[in-house]
Amino acid sequence: MDSRNGSVSETPLDAEIESFFDSAPPLKDSAGIIKKLKEFIEYNSTPPGKGSPRRVVCVTSGGTTVPLEQRCVRYIDNFSSGHRGATSTEYFIKAGYAVIFLYRRGTFQPYCQSLPEDPLLECFECSEDSTIQVRQPHTEAVKRAVSDHHAAIAGGHLLKLPFTTIFEYLQILQSIAMSMKDLGSLAVFYLAAAVSDFYVPWKSMAEHKIQSASGPLDMRLVQVPKMLSALKKEWAPMAFCISFKLETDSKILLEKAEMALKKYRMHMVVANELSTRKEEVTVVTGNEKILVCRDKTQADSDVEEPLIELIVGRHSAYVKDSDL
Amino acid sequence: MDSRNGSVSETPLDAEIESFFDSAPPLKDSAGIIKKLKEFIEYNSTPPGKGSPRRVVCVTSGGTTVPLEQRCVRYIDNFSSGHRGATSTEYFIKAGYAVIFLYRRGTFQPYCQSLPEDPLLECFECSEDSTIQVRQPHTEAVKRAVSDHHAAIAGGHLLKLPFTTIFEYLQILQSIAMSMKDLGSLAVFYLAAAVSDFYVPWKSMAEHKIQSASGPLDMRLVQVPKMLSALKKEWAPMAFCISFKLETDSKILLEKAEMALKKYRMHMVVANELSTRKEEVTVVTGNEKILVCRDKTQADSDVEEPLIELIVGRHSAYVKDSDL
Repeated sequence: MDSRNGSVSETPLDAEIESFFDSAPPLKDSAGIIKKLKEFIEYNSTPPGKGSPRRVVCVTSGGTTVPLEQRCVRYIDNFSSGHRGATSTEYFIKAGYAVIFLYRRGTFQPYCQSLPEDPLLECFECSEDSTIQVRQPHTEAVKRAVSDHHAAIAGGHLLKLPFTTIFEYLQILQSIAMSMKDLGSLAVFYLAAAVSDFYVPWKSMAEHKIQSASGPLDMRLVQVPKMLSALKKEWAPMAFCISFKLETDSKILLEKAEMALKKYRMHMVVANELSTRKEEVTVVTGNEKILVCRDKTQADSDVEEPLIELIVGRHSAYVKDSDL
Repeated sequence: MDSRNGSVSETPLDAEIESFFDSAPPLKDSAGIIKKLKEFIEYNSTPPGKGSPRRVVCVTSGGTTVPLEQRCVRYIDNFSSGHRGATSTEYFIKAGYAVIFLYRRGTFQPYCQSLPEDPLLECFECSEDSTIQVRQPHTEAVKRAVSDHHAAIAGGHLLKLPFTTIFEYLQILQSIAMSMKDLGSLAVFYLAAAVSDFYVPWKSMAEHKIQSASGPLDMRLVQVPKMLSALKKEWAPMAFCISFKLETDSKILLEKAEMALKKYRMHMVVANELSTRKEEVTVVTGNEKILVCRDKTQADSDVEEPLIELIVGRHSAYVKDSDL
């Protein structure tokens, strides 16, 4: 049976995943990450006073890299600005969720969307008495970024964990999922990161920089095992799971989103096309296809606001059902 | 004759370069870039008052990407923080040069070296009367970044041009070189960017996202034509040229640096090994190998300070020789 065509046979996938993790370079500060996760989840499960436990969502954001050499000079990267994940994080926090933001280093951060590319050098100036001040047109954007961001961190509602490689991403995702297991149906995974499909297994990788003098470069990359299955089956089986499908070819997009929904038993798959992804997405569930558009009557509206509203509604119904 | 082994036959290389540029996607805002270059070089060639023309150095910094798909989701990237180029830019400006800083989007910027990874969110806070202020330990670093950077831009000594892909990088580098041609020996190229050796020719590239369902991915990449030859022979033949050689294997480093010096007729090749590149480099010239180390008695010293001092000295001698 071909494990790539839907009906996955159990053992081969598990073995693939085990071999991926076994061969990956060890994650730096793994113990520190697990400690932070434990504290964050405990704090939000038993909030001060008589509040009920917060729902916790893991938002993944930005693209993963695949190193081509062990002492890494070259790597394959997946394009993703991290805009979707960062904006969605803001709406989840607004809706009362605690967010574990697993993001690619250097990508967009929550509350910073309306800032220019290089905010430090573009938004500030040195006054004559040599104090640093915000330049006029940016005052509100800078205030919002700094104060909302600090409020979310200080309130214990936002935990940020950075990654770069596919190895780091999947190792940290596994730690997050296993830490969130006990939250049951209160846990949500919102997997917006652009995750590499192909990688070079660490052990078969060139140790040194690949030399360019010897003609064209032929590379063979193998498929990254599909971790969504493990997430759903073992790491956090009760969690509400949303994955993303990005294509540049709209003709195959919905078909591929439906395949992903069934194959990995997601609750929702958000289908988006590269060129229109900031205007609209289609949310595919077991029995619906829901088109979600940004409010085009408002210049600064975004598609994440109605998308997170829809997800929060569906998640609430899921939590209620699970309690019965 | 094998064009990869040193003795380059003329026509094949020129044809390769022509075909690279012909097949590249057109550069956005090419006219705007050329206009900025023209103004910057004119301003520094005829400074206000009776000053003599400034020397102009083009510093390239950060890594180039190679798209694997035309509507780009995946690409191969070259690791480079841009630290070397950004720091060197500061020392060149201090030494009286005007700098054209050709940098990869998102990499280190001049005057920002001592700031944390996410300066906006880490260095600022919102006070009780809701003004934005710098957090204590970062005050000096932020002041320096903002005021020195603005002074360099406002004084007309720093022109920043960003790139992402190998196509953009080489197209802009060509425009810069041709704009600097008339500066003769006053022009310097300090080529610290990590430039891709291999690329997928635009026309043979997949239009849509590569599908992952069909087994392992085999890729064939071809060599990027060696533009240093064209730079030296045609674009700006009188310029003083410094290129960089980075290897992870110290055993082959100096040998490869010497080959590059001869093959591309550089004035200097800076040889650096990945793991020690912040401590020391070896400058290879026609008849010397000069080890340049940072001052280890100073905690915050860097290797760029003595390196730029050495280069400025050699460039001065070169300008003098050319005037004879």
